[in-house]
Formats: sequence, C-alpha cells, structure tokens
Amino acid sequence: MKINIAPISTTLDVAIHQKIDSKTKPLGALGKLETIAFKIARIQQTLIPQLQHPTIVVFAADHGIAKEGLVNSYPQEVTFQMVMNFLSGGAAINVFANQNNINLKIVDAGINYDFGKLEGLIDTKIAMGTGNYLLTRAMRAEQCEEALVKGAELVQSIFDSGSNVVGFAEMGIGNTSSSALLMSTICNISIVDCVGNGTGVNNEQLELKIKTLVQVLEKHIDVDTTNPLELLQTFGGFEIAQMCGGMLKAAELGMVILVDGFISSAAILVAQSINKNVLDYAIFTHHSDEQGHTKMLEFMEAEPVMNLGMRLGEGSGIAVSYPIIEAAVNFLNKMASFESAQVSNK
Amino acid sequence: MKINIAPISTTLDVAIHQKIDSKTKPLGALGKLETIAFKIARIQQTLIPQLQHPTIVVFAADHGIAKEGLVNSYPQEVTFQMVMNFLSGGAAINVFANQNNINLKIVDAGINYDFGKLEGLIDTKIAMGTGNYLLTRAMRAEQCEEALVKGAELVQSIFDSGSNVVGFAEMGIGNTSSSALLMSTICNISIVDCVGNGTGVNNEQLELKIKTLVQVLEKHIDVDTTNPLELLQTFGGFEIAQMCGGMLKAAELGMVILVDGFISSAAILVAQSINKNVLDYAIFTHHSDEQGHTKMLEFMEAEPVMNLGMRLGEGSGIAVSYPIIEAAVNFLNKMASFESAQVSNK
Repeated sequence: MKINIAPISTTLDVAIHQKIDSKTKPLGALGKLETIAFKIARIQQTLIPQLQHPTIVVFAADHGIAKEGLVNSYPQEVTFQMVMNFLSGGAAINVFANQNNINLKIVDAGINYDFGKLEGLIDTKIAMGTGNYLLTRAMRAEQCEEALVKGAELVQSIFDSGSNVVGFAEMGIGNTSSSALLMSTICNISIVDCVGNGTGVNNEQLELKIKTLVQVLEKHIDVDTTNPLELLQTFGGFEIAQMCGGMLKAAELGMVILVDGFISSAAILVAQSINKNVLDYAIFTHHSDEQGHTKMLEFMEAEPVMNLGMRLGEGSGIAVSYPIIEAAVNFLNKMASFESAQVSNK
Repeated sequence: MKINIAPISTTLDVAIHQKIDSKTKPLGALGKLETIAFKIARIQQTLIPQLQHPTIVVFAADHGIAKEGLVNSYPQEVTFQMVMNFLSGGAAINVFANQNNINLKIVDAGINYDFGKLEGLIDTKIAMGTGNYLLTRAMRAEQCEEALVKGAELVQSIFDSGSNVVGFAEMGIGNTSSSALLMSTICNISIVDCVGNGTGVNNEQLELKIKTLVQVLEKHIDVDTTNPLELLQTFGGFEIAQMCGGMLKAAELGMVILVDGFISSAAILVAQSINKNVLDYAIFTHHSDEQGHTKMLEFMEAEPVMNLGMRLGEGSGIAVSYPIIEAAVNFLNKMASFESAQVSNK
C-alpha cells in the first residue's frame, strides 16, 4: 500500500499558542486540554478547528493461537458473540458511543464465523482468523497487504462521508498476545514486560501465556525486526493490520486519529514504524490498565488523555474520553479573551 | 447550622456489585467507571440510579488578604470581572457546562463589589469580602454561621427544583491561600506543602506567599485546630463557608456531591471535619495541578476521577469530567448482561 503522509506544518504554531493564551484563564491552567486543542488546530491547520462526524470503527478478528486456550481465558467464540452484542446495541461501546453522539461501525476483519449477510456488519474479512503463530506466520504477505488496503479504503469512505475524526478500536480474543509480540520485537523490550492479564487471565494462566509467547518468539527467531510488515505478517491479527492501514490513510487525509488502548496502540506502533509522521495526527485517548501499555506509550513518547484503569477495548476508552477532546476544541473556539471580556490580565 | 447526615446504607452493596459484574465485560474492566457507578447506586440506594438536572454552583467571594498583593498575582477586581464573564457566557465553565448540559448558577457569596440588582446573579452576599487574616479573623462567628446556612438553603432550593447531583465550584482571588491554611491546620501538614502556584504566581511570588502564610499562622497560633468552625472563621472565605454548608446539606438530602479542585476540596475538608459522613456522598472529579491537592486528597482517602493537569477552578474540573460520571451510570443501566446477550462467560 502506498502512503504519503505530509510532515505536519508548524506554520501556525505561534498563532495557535497565542490564541490559547489569550483566553480568560491563567497561562496553562487548562492543562492537557490546551495540548489537545493545540494538536487538533495544528492537524487541521486552522485557529478554529472543528470535529465533524466523529466515528469509531471496531475491527474484529480471530487469532489462530486462541483456539489452543494457551493465552486467553475467554473462548474464541466470544469474538463473534461480542460482535452480535455490538450489533444489537448491548455492549459498553454502544452505550458510550450513543451517549456522546459518536458514529459506530462494526467490521468483520477476519472473524472465525460465517455471518452470511448481516445488517450493520461491514465485511472486510480476510480469512476465518489468522494462522497459529506457534506453527506458522499469522498471515501471508498478500493477506497482510489486503488487510492494510481494506483498512485504508474503509477510512477513505468515512472521510468521504464527511468525518474528520476517526477512532480505531478492536475486538478479538487473543489479540493482547499479538500486540505484546509486536511490541516486544519493535521496541526491543522483553516479552515479560509486554504481557499482561488481557481481559482477565489469572496468575497461572499469565505464566502459561508468557511461556507460550516465549516459544513463539523462539519459533520466529529469524524474523527481520527492522521490517514492520514482516512483523505484522508474523505476529499480527487482521484487525491490527486493518487498523494500521486505516491509521496511515487517516493521517494522509489529515484526519484526527483517536487511539484506544493496548491493541489499538500496537497498531499505531506498527504504523509509525512504517511512517513516523502518523503520530503527528494521533491522540492517545487513554492509558490502559494492561501492564505493557505504559512502556509502549513511553516508546512513542505518547501522553494519553486520561487513565481510568480501564482494560476493555472495543473503543471504550475513545468513547469515554471523547467529550474531553470536544472540550478542548470548544474552549479554543468559544471562550472569551481577556480583551473581549475586559478582565485584567497580569 | 444543624445537619443530620445518615450513615450510608450498605444494604444494596452485594446486589450492586453483582449487577456490575453481570455486564458483558471482564470483571473490573471498566476501572473507575465501576467505582463511580457503585458509589452513585449506593448514594441513591437503587440498582438503577439516575442523574437528574446536574447543577454546578460557582460561589464567588473576595479575600481581605488579596488587597495586599502578597499571595496573589491577579488583582482583587478579577473576582468581579470574572463573575461578569460568567454571566455573559465567556468563561471556561460556561463553555464546558453548555457542552455537557449542566445547569450553571453564579453566586455572589461576598464579592468586594456592588453589583446592584443583576440578572442571573444569585445574591447570598455576607460582606464585601473577608477580613485580612494577617490582622484579624477572616470572619465573625455569626458571619460564618450565616454563610453555612445560606449555602445550605441554596442547595435545598436546587434539590427542590428536581436536581439530585450538585457540583461545588468557586471564584475568588486569594482563595488558594485560605485553602492552604485550612489544609495545614486540619491535616497537620506544614504550610509549605500546602501552598502552590495558585493561578500562576512565579517563584519569587511563591516565596512571598509562603512567608505571608507562615506569618498568618503565627498570628493565629492560639486557634483551636480541633474546631473546624473556628478554623473556617479564622482562615476561610465566604465562598468556602457557603460551599461547606451546601455540601453538608446535599449529603443530608442524599444528593451526589461533585467536588472540583483544591478550593472545593478544602471546603469538603472542613465539612468532613464537622461530619465525616459527607464523604460518602462525594465524588472528587479531578486531581488539580495545585501542588497541595495531592496530600489533601490523600488525607481524605479520595481518588479523583481524572487528572488533566488543570488548575483553573470555576467548576471546570467538574464540568469536563461530568460525561465520565454519566458514562458510569449509563453502563450500569444500559449494558447487556452475559445472559441477555448470550455471550459465554468464563
């Protein structure tokens, strides 16, 4: 997939800072809201940024490894069951997206289930789940390319329908393991520090999870860790690859990218290995409770908006934090200045 | 003022936890949202809590000390100027309250300015600012009592109009100093650890602020630190006293209390010294960037909802965090259970 992400322009930086500092508040008193407002104004290259038709895409896919029960506490069929839950409106992401007026798109990126034709489900399926990376690469090179392209095409269609802010979310039993493997190889961090409890393995299961992933790394000892596409093929999931392609396209289009938790961050970790500029367009919405997230964020020098100790995925962190991002844009556009309000400045 | 706050009932605790754990998510995966949902359900003693007509009250008042310019970088008239800004809709709190559909009430608790009759401003004025505690107590005992009662009456009227969730906010040049003095004497923490940059004093000004507050403590060395009302009279502000009275009344009425930053927390610090039960009804909405806030929160074993590095007051922390609190109530009421969604549990 060919991508051309313009380096972000710094032309307006001084003017944006001046506008923020003219507001009736002490310098810096709105903390992270100021950082977010600055970033969005810079992405949109305007002093009056607007968030239009915010959209969260939940990419769902299955992982070959999950059939073994070595890395996951929930069985693989929970992926498709949760997709049905998304479609009937009962999941956390439905509740939060509804509350905050965010469009929600549910995508079958490669679930191990035949849905037939199903109202509301977007079909970008690559296969019935990835291969088991204990035995083989998770996907073939052409599957990886297809996933990147399909993710990009989906984001292009969202952009074409008038949205300029898109959140990347996922569902896939076993995908914290994929993310940990990608993190370990890209960041050169011991797998032990990349693995966490996922959606709730206990300590015994955690040991088995680590042991299994160590075996996976040994199996693929010859993988070229300087080649992000090869890493994605080896350890990735179809949802991670589609998020990665979608993020690169969103940056190319100048959209605001909203990153969710550990798995969504792993997708942009791969994306920024392909093109570093993608990070200039990204807001990390929350710090996940999944332990590896801390070091992964540090590696990308990312400061997430909030930390509520959440570890659910589905885009729940994006949806819950979204009003904070709106607040940042709103203060920049709607607050009075010291001059206009006739308030004495220092 | 007589207050009778019922100890919170734990009757429903098990049922609330069961309801939270039945939702289609791993145990605990919604982090603080679960804690908040639990707390609100417990306050309202129901499994289907509702937030009705959320209201933020901004209590504004002046401080005798601020005329000297020893503890503040903005001049005293900024209190009334900012109140005019609130009334014309240009301040941060206006923007955030509008965004999140929160009622906003602006109160003259004791501003050093004669507004006459002014549309939209609630008059609970005790005096034209407090006395200068370098020379005298900030207020007389009967003024303190009047402030507590007026705060309580205002909250009663908000409750009577159908609200069950009320945020306590403030504006008052110099009021971080009052708060630091109350914190130092109530928590028995050195004043140095209670004083911060307020809305933006520089390092030289900070030294002067600390030196001044040390003098204040020496002047009032005989104050009875076990008597919260005497401390409030000596070091308080009219906005802090009205918040304190309002918080006690809100707890008595079984309302959800939303605490803002450092000064709002100082008000509930006094309130919980009067009646510890008030804390069972309180949600600390954000961790302020004012340095003393950390230890003050620790003293009350309070875990704020979020930390955005904000230090503005006005209720900005309450208003920005409010959608997170709504999200907590919404997931409890609206998410499907494993059973209803036919999702396999572990």
